[in-house]
Amino acid sequence: MKFEFLNPTHLVFGAGSLSRLGEVVRAYGKKALLVTGGGSVRRNDTFDRAVSSLKAAGVAVAECSGIEPNPRLSTVLRGAGIARSEGCDVVVALGGGSVMDAAKAMAATLFYEGDPWNMMTGQKNRRLPEKALPVVTVPTLAATGSEMNGGAVITNEKTTLKSFVTAGCLYPRAAVVDPELTLSVPPDQTAFGICDLMTHVTESYFNGVDGTPLQDRFAEGVIHTAMEWGPRAVSDGRDIKARAQVQWASVVALNGWVQIGTLAPYPVHMIEHSLSAHHDIAHGAGLAVVNPAWMRFAARTRPERFAQFAERIFGLSPQRPDDSEAAAQGIDRFEAFLRSIGCPTCLSEVGIGKALLERYAKDTLLVAHDADGRLPGRPSMSEADIVEVLRSAL
Amino acid sequence: MKFEFLNPTHLVFGAGSLSRLGEVVRAYGKKALLVTGGGSVRRNDTFDRAVSSLKAAGVAVAECSGIEPNPRLSTVLRGAGIARSEGCDVVVALGGGSVMDAAKAMAATLFYEGDPWNMMTGQKNRRLPEKALPVVTVPTLAATGSEMNGGAVITNEKTTLKSFVTAGCLYPRAAVVDPELTLSVPPDQTAFGICDLMTHVTESYFNGVDGTPLQDRFAEGVIHTAMEWGPRAVSDGRDIKARAQVQWASVVALNGWVQIGTLAPYPVHMIEHSLSAHHDIAHGAGLAVVNPAWMRFAARTRPERFAQFAERIFGLSPQRPDDSEAAAQGIDRFEAFLRSIGCPTCLSEVGIGKALLERYAKDTLLVAHDADGRLPGRPSMSEADIVEVLRSAL
Repeated sequence: MKFEFLNPTHLVFGAGSLSRLGEVVRAYGKKALLVTGGGSVRRNDTFDRAVSSLKAAGVAVAECSGIEPNPRLSTVLRGAGIARSEGCDVVVALGGGSVMDAAKAMAATLFYEGDPWNMMTGQKNRRLPEKALPVVTVPTLAATGSEMNGGAVITNEKTTLKSFVTAGCLYPRAAVVDPELTLSVPPDQTAFGICDLMTHVTESYFNGVDGTPLQDRFAEGVIHTAMEWGPRAVSDGRDIKARAQVQWASVVALNGWVQIGTLAPYPVHMIEHSLSAHHDIAHGAGLAVVNPAWMRFAARTRPERFAQFAERIFGLSPQRPDDSEAAAQGIDRFEAFLRSIGCPTCLSEVGIGKALLERYAKDTLLVAHDADGRLPGRPSMSEADIVEVLRSAL
Repeated sequence: MKFEFLNPTHLVFGAGSLSRLGEVVRAYGKKALLVTGGGSVRRNDTFDRAVSSLKAAGVAVAECSGIEPNPRLSTVLRGAGIARSEGCDVVVALGGGSVMDAAKAMAATLFYEGDPWNMMTGQKNRRLPEKALPVVTVPTLAATGSEMNGGAVITNEKTTLKSFVTAGCLYPRAAVVDPELTLSVPPDQTAFGICDLMTHVTESYFNGVDGTPLQDRFAEGVIHTAMEWGPRAVSDGRDIKARAQVQWASVVALNGWVQIGTLAPYPVHMIEHSLSAHHDIAHGAGLAVVNPAWMRFAARTRPERFAQFAERIFGLSPQRPDDSEAAAQGIDRFEAFLRSIGCPTCLSEVGIGKALLERYAKDTLLVAHDADGRLPGRPSMSEADIVEVLRSAL
């Protein structure tokens, strides 16, 4: 176990913390580019409260609204243009993962020479961003964990490729995480967010290096918490206690702490990105389809790992040395949980057929591949493997 | 659940990382005050390797050696004096918790007006430090977690009071955590360190606010990991895998992550500090004596909490609604574990009799008390309660 870790984001967590936004942002700038999504923050009073808090603290506001789900490179360029012309010195992201990711990419694009797509993983002439405007995130959805990490996922609409960038300069300076903002999230989006956060930790759990037992326990803790509180948040969106636990779990699931030292690639995410680059499906819904299918594929080569999962999460008893049955049962239970909260677990349920399976697999490998051209993970996967996994999820 | 969190320490973890010390320190200063303890780092080659790494990176070194266990205020003043006269611009702590805590206090004392004892909790005219020289920690013992937090425990030898300070400026800029440095720690000190790290999380687990289920899981994960790997590190000190897991658990146990949002007071630590202020016993050994006795006291008012501990850590089955039996069994098992690795669990084993029980209790309350003069915790404790707990541990 060898690693370095630094997460410099100042986390302000708790119901009502939106009221502190202005005070927090004021430490980093005088004029904010306020990045928002499709309009839900305007339908309730979240947008107005954010602007009021900023203005009360003496922070001027320029707007960049209309960030679409699976945010596009052209949107990133548009936002960076507004920030430049308006003279913004801080970026505030008020929305879900798409808004936060786009805002981070905008903040870096301002200082990036050349095409910002060159930041992204999978590019031949990749060059990481080294500088960005300070970013403050205000998540309105418990899902991506983008509020407290240095990653961003962007889609290039010209090539229909979805890729990601992770860089030190992309860590938000502060995250104002107010579970009250998630009270109006509908049940389906709530469930997709729960699947997203759970997948963040299953990926590192199943794809990380050996010998990280404490990180295993952390990941299991996130899963237990999501399974205990997630259904309550889905069935009663106004349950602030459940909303707070789910949102806290989503922050933890991808701020680097659970993954520390695991060096895990994220094959399920890579495959899903290829789906949501072609189809406007919610990322969390796509993960709910791909993850159980991937687990069944991966359990063939490492049943003992999946048996540990089955034992610690579902209390099943592996029959060593053949752990295969417990492993399979654990995956079934995991999939059943996703279905129980309303997630799709088949491609047909999200309107995806078999026509483009090879294309998704090829696109996945364009973004992420090892020296042998395979998708990194445990096990690594060929194009045919990816197709097989997707076919099993039809 | 409402909290703020920021841990700015850059963690460099892994066997062999001592060789990177110079490169890490160079980012913060040109002349280091190198703070060390009683000589163990000189008996092996740790000291020489640290100095070589610093010098190779162009960092000059001034020495402050001889930090005693339970470091004293006069030692802090001595170190600050050396740093001032030598013109040091960075402090490097190479040693255990005492060395790291003393180094942090020295770094702050340089900028502190007046008596630095006024930084400490329990002082009437308390004033927190606001500035400190950058500190880089290099722990040689897995125990206190001081390498990655903003706390320091200091003893005032004039009053025989041991108190602590926690401040943002005391967070080390970097922690170089190399498990190889712990390979030569003898079995008893190894066991005391394991007890120390476990107590860091039992304190927040049993004294924190309600409604932090994910933090519960994190704490349980630390305990499971310490119980799985701790005995291996005690029985075979050269087992680098075990040393790494124990040291990683000790970092996690008190860098704030497990405690986040729990707002937990640390009554067992407060009581133990009064013991080790009067007697030069290892802090971890004192905790092994006080913690089980405190647990039995606290379980009377909150058996369900201790039953959860018994269930999740030891697999015991609480018989609700009366959880008392499982609670008691869990505490017995916890105490038995401490004994199994070689920790004392009675005052007599560390050479402490009944003569000063009231004095320890009074001293504890001098350092930490609520508005009613009671020791904060769940439950809060009167002087008589503290005496009762200590008497039960005779």
